[in-house]
Amino acid sequence: MTIADSNVQILVVGGGALGSMFGWRLQVSGCSVSFVCRSNYEVVSQSGFRIESTRFGNNQFIPNSLYRNCKDAFDKQTFDYVLICTKSLPNLSNPADMLLGCEIDSRTVFVLMQNGINIERYFYSEFPQNRFISAIAYIDTKQVESGVIVHGEAGSLTFGIYTPNEIKDDGSFPSPICQTLETHLIAGGFSAKISENIQRDRWLKLVWNSTLNPISVLAGGLNSKEIFKDPELVNFITEVMMETISIGEAVVGGPLSSIPREDIPKSLLDPIRIRKNPVYPSMLVDFTFKRPMEHQVILKNALDYAADFNVNAPMLKTIYHLIVSNERKYL
Amino acid sequence: MTIADSNVQILVVGGGALGSMFGWRLQVSGCSVSFVCRSNYEVVSQSGFRIESTRFGNNQFIPNSLYRNCKDAFDKQTFDYVLICTKSLPNLSNPADMLLGCEIDSRTVFVLMQNGINIERYFYSEFPQNRFISAIAYIDTKQVESGVIVHGEAGSLTFGIYTPNEIKDDGSFPSPICQTLETHLIAGGFSAKISENIQRDRWLKLVWNSTLNPISVLAGGLNSKEIFKDPELVNFITEVMMETISIGEAVVGGPLSSIPREDIPKSLLDPIRIRKNPVYPSMLVDFTFKRPMEHQVILKNALDYAADFNVNAPMLKTIYHLIVSNERKYL
Repeated sequence: MTIADSNVQILVVGGGALGSMFGWRLQVSGCSVSFVCRSNYEVVSQSGFRIESTRFGNNQFIPNSLYRNCKDAFDKQTFDYVLICTKSLPNLSNPADMLLGCEIDSRTVFVLMQNGINIERYFYSEFPQNRFISAIAYIDTKQVESGVIVHGEAGSLTFGIYTPNEIKDDGSFPSPICQTLETHLIAGGFSAKISENIQRDRWLKLVWNSTLNPISVLAGGLNSKEIFKDPELVNFITEVMMETISIGEAVVGGPLSSIPREDIPKSLLDPIRIRKNPVYPSMLVDFTFKRPMEHQVILKNALDYAADFNVNAPMLKTIYHLIVSNERKYL
Repeated sequence: MTIADSNVQILVVGGGALGSMFGWRLQVSGCSVSFVCRSNYEVVSQSGFRIESTRFGNNQFIPNSLYRNCKDAFDKQTFDYVLICTKSLPNLSNPADMLLGCEIDSRTVFVLMQNGINIERYFYSEFPQNRFISAIAYIDTKQVESGVIVHGEAGSLTFGIYTPNEIKDDGSFPSPICQTLETHLIAGGFSAKISENIQRDRWLKLVWNSTLNPISVLAGGLNSKEIFKDPELVNFITEVMMETISIGEAVVGGPLSSIPREDIPKSLLDPIRIRKNPVYPSMLVDFTFKRPMEHQVILKNALDYAADFNVNAPMLKTIYHLIVSNERKYL
């Protein structure tokens, strides 16, 4: 099976900045890529996505098929991979509800690309007969207007098999379903890394997400440059990061990284510190535009694990309650 | 010595809502009451304070003398009591700096009426030869425009001797300097309570101040009615209150109240809950008007004690860092 004629059928659910970029590069690599778009359906159906990428230049990207909802897509086609690229907001509704009434082939693989912890379970409990890939995306991209995507340089996916009842991999590494995805991502010009312990990687990413994200909101609406101007605030963030690390270590049953645990915060903060442009964490963007924030999967699911594993996380708990209260003021 | 001819000389430093009301009632009781006014000096020098009180009716209050600063006052007069009614902001400058260059008689008693913990030390370290009364004011009053004071019903002062090197009283209870103040407050129509353990009472008040004050800001700018709409937030506040209680118990070496420690939060919250009108905590008011907040004496001094006494207070610490960061954005 060569890449060009492999005819891998992919459905991307969520045509935002994340989904459009990954979908596009997978189409470039030879996959057939369909989309479920919501807010930008009209624009994309007329002229596709307009992509302005530092790395790949200016492009028009026309999906192979476009649907208004998942039901329409699964009524028409069968897919090898379904990339879930929407925000995860289980506090508002079950994320798997968008698949209600869909007849999904048991060979279809779900690729869950959302932020947070335990995001997989919402889908797994509805489709236990399917296989799941849990994925962490690193990409600098945003949708600047409906259907218009601006992308910088970065683009990589770390992913591995999701095994619901054990935290660690199920021993099927390297799985053929992961290898096919890896091949196509690389052919499309992105980096890909199959992880032996994707949950450990998820927790490592959560160390960043559970701290800088909400604190950027609660500390007064600060972007990364403003945060780094204040060494006391950075020290405080480092302390909160250690709480997330402690929960993660308890859950995955070992260290989150090959570097010493106390060096993890610095290793996560330094790359942001040296960036030329400020980072606006997604929660800060959502807060600014009065949109729902992903506090359930980024904070509450972690705090639930903390309770299960008897790990103290009072700082994260404080942050969680304050974020929820701030959101309640506008939502 | 009768009240009418007692000729007690009082200086009130800070002619805001607090100082004006206590100064006024002490004048009514027969004391000679002078003021150091800053922002409202011009108005008060022309027509005194205009006081609109539910309890005492509409009144004009002309201080016996009025000064622009403490130096002028102490150059002209000697005082029996100096009531310090300004905000305490040691993070910006030493609160005792306003007395720089003042020649103060060693018989003068300082009455420190500020919020927070360890507010007395700033004055004691400059005037160790003087005696100090530490006082907690309960009063519903605000300055609605320069020199115009609106007052409701409440007015009481709990106070006791400040003994710098021990937390507890020095055994001089009931002290004559406390009794004189008590007599005049009661004659002026206010309640007065001489406390055997004023530091314990200060910590009990701090349980309220260290939680509702900053959380009203950080939870999205909520007044008391908005806070009580959210049972989860109230539960969270209760948890944070337990941290302050733990620090206070360690510092004073015993319980903060005669009621069981776990019932303290409810006992503090219920009176606010049932109030007809919402409470706007002082930090929320200061934050709204972009003024300095008393986070040093209300949070940091308590956290310093927590460190000294090996008490964990991670929630209060989180709140402290977030408040400071919010203030830094505008100050």
